[in-house]
Amino acid sequence: MLSAMFIKFITTGGTIDKIYFDDLSQFEVGESQVQHILAEGLASFDFEIVPLLHKDSLEITAEDRQKIRDCIAADEAERFVVTHGTDTMPETAEALMGLEDKTIVLTGALSPARFRTTDAVFNVGMAVAAAQVAAPGVYIAMSGQVFEAGAVRKNRAANRFETVGDAPD
Amino acid sequence: MLSAMFIKFITTGGTIDKIYFDDLSQFEVGESQVQHILAEGLASFDFEIVPLLHKDSLEITAEDRQKIRDCIAADEAERFVVTHGTDTMPETAEALMGLEDKTIVLTGALSPARFRTTDAVFNVGMAVAAAQVAAPGVYIAMSGQVFEAGAVRKNRAANRFETVGDAPD
Amino acid sequence: MLSAMFIKFITTGGTIDKIYFDDLSQFEVGESQVQHILAEGLASFDFEIVPLLHKDSLEITAEDRQKIRDCIAADEAERFVVTHGTDTMPETAEALMGLEDKTIVLTGALSPARFRTTDAVFNVGMAVAAAQVAAPGVYIAMSGQVFEAGAVRKNRAANRFETVGDAPD
Amino acid sequence: MLSAMFIKFITTGGTIDKIYFDDLSQFEVGESQVQHILAEGLASFDFEIVPLLHKDSLEITAEDRQKIRDCIAADEAERFVVTHGTDTMPETAEALMGLEDKTIVLTGALSPARFRTTDAVFNVGMAVAAAQVAAPGVYIAMSGQVFEAGAVRKNRAANRFETVGDAPD
Repeated sequence: MLSAMFIKFITTGGTIDKIYFDDLSQFEVGESQVQHILAEGLASFDFEIVPLLHKDSLEITAEDRQKIRDCIAADEAERFVVTHGTDTMPETAEALMGLEDKTIVLTGALSPARFRTTDAVFNVGMAVAAAQVAAPGVYIAMSGQVFEAGAVRKNRAANRFETVGDAPD
Repeated sequence: MLSAMFIKFITTGGTIDKIYFDDLSQFEVGESQVQHILAEGLASFDFEIVPLLHKDSLEITAEDRQKIRDCIAADEAERFVVTHGTDTMPETAEALMGLEDKTIVLTGALSPARFRTTDAVFNVGMAVAAAQVAAPGVYIAMSGQVFEAGAVRKNRAANRFETVGDAPD
Repeated sequence: MLSAMFIKFITTGGTIDKIYFDDLSQFEVGESQVQHILAEGLASFDFEIVPLLHKDSLEITAEDRQKIRDCIAADEAERFVVTHGTDTMPETAEALMGLEDKTIVLTGALSPARFRTTDAVFNVGMAVAAAQVAAPGVYIAMSGQVFEAGAVRKNRAANRFETVGDAPD
Repeated sequence: MLSAMFIKFITTGGTIDKIYFDDLSQFEVGESQVQHILAEGLASFDFEIVPLLHKDSLEITAEDRQKIRDCIAADEAERFVVTHGTDTMPETAEALMGLEDKTIVLTGALSPARFRTTDAVFNVGMAVAAAQVAAPGVYIAMSGQVFEAGAVRKNRAANRFETVGDAPD
């Protein structure tokens, strides 16, 4: 039986997991950084990490979103954190709505977890807390806030997430 | 008027804010690291930081706890994050119970925020999310978990927080 | 008059100064990181930083190398650290040989200075020491070693610098 | 046979290796950080690390200094980096003078290597370069400079190393 606080992490790629190769001057999605972040956070709950996709979020297709949804629906866990590229995170969040008794939190990072200064650790911390505390539903934990799916967008000019309907700066 | 997501941070000292002075080989509580952590987390909500105390948690007295409680009770804000030393964090959490319509989350760190490897960033991320999402009440966000006040203790031997009543490893 | 330990830094781009932009998924040469690295190293000697070029080292031309050489030849300083991309660092080092009474040390990084784990800080530390201690001439400080210009190459497969003539592993 | 670039590291304690224990609120000398620093610097030369002492530099005695000197004198290596607490580093440097054909560089850190911001990595980079490049003798690599033993002191008020005889700021 899964413990009450068990969280299933599903990684799909995105900036949070980007790595840099000097020889070819490339910057590609690498191994998931979630495990390192949880270790640094001294997290002591039970979890499992499923590396489902390995893509920039602009390349995530409708089929990919269905695959994530199916993966969650078929899983006995009740709490999920999905790491995802930021550009289409709101679309994926909407595609996961309506699964009963599941608390699903999407998060990611605006700069890679391997950077000296990164929002990745803070964001995964937020996602882990939201997955434990929030009512069943779909959420995005970014920019220091926990947003509900369907009411959040990425403001690319300001490089932050905000509630749909917020007045511009 | 405060925005719905406004969080008041109250800092009281503890390991999270420890700094080291070479000359005297001392290690003392320094300036609050909360602002730096929120900046690194690219947090874009409204907040205010009140540096209320500057103590190791073993030195926190009943008067100090009353002072924290009075500070929160007198404040119009509804969401609070209290940074605190870890050794007596559960006692302070209990001393803050019973304030109506206030969501209060205590957090801190087992290693200082100025360290290269620290749980401080992850923990403040958790606390910020819990302060936004949790129902009114008092919580501790440590060890990757959000605990309810009155049902959590620090296991010093294992150097982690756990639910009271958990079986030992 | 310049102090005996004065070092002139010339930055030309390369991985050491790479930055990442999420929106466009680009990775470009940014502001020089030398100043931040010297601050972290608590360096207390006199120095000046000249941002001369802003290029990946594969794009450095013969004209660029002449420009670096002219810049050094015309300068009254005797000690120079040149930050440079790694792929053609040996070629630029050779192009700077033969300037009398000048100690010139080229360095850079295999992973960007902004990364949490980077060789940039160590390498600039090596370059600063070599510029102060070595006899006039041209050197490369990389891979934990100070090489003489003309006798060093980048082993791309092993991703390290080595003396020309070293036996393969 | 030792390679020409072989460096023997001797660690003696000091701030560079300090670690912090939350439970007891202690800050003690821990395992040597030299190996981690060399790995981060992508150093590819041959080396060996000897953990000789484990002390704050104010506790280093005349016997300890003789022990370090004997250790170096009896060793076939020609290049040595000695990590040491900063407060009495100049005294130890003087105690190591006069060993023929040995290049000995002392270094350490004003803030621990485990800190997010530390001079340890830069300083060990300097020491490694100086050990390879400098003529036989004893040196201190701190504050961005390579000083000769006997002509350097720690300015505690300014928290930096400087040449004896330097005018005050």
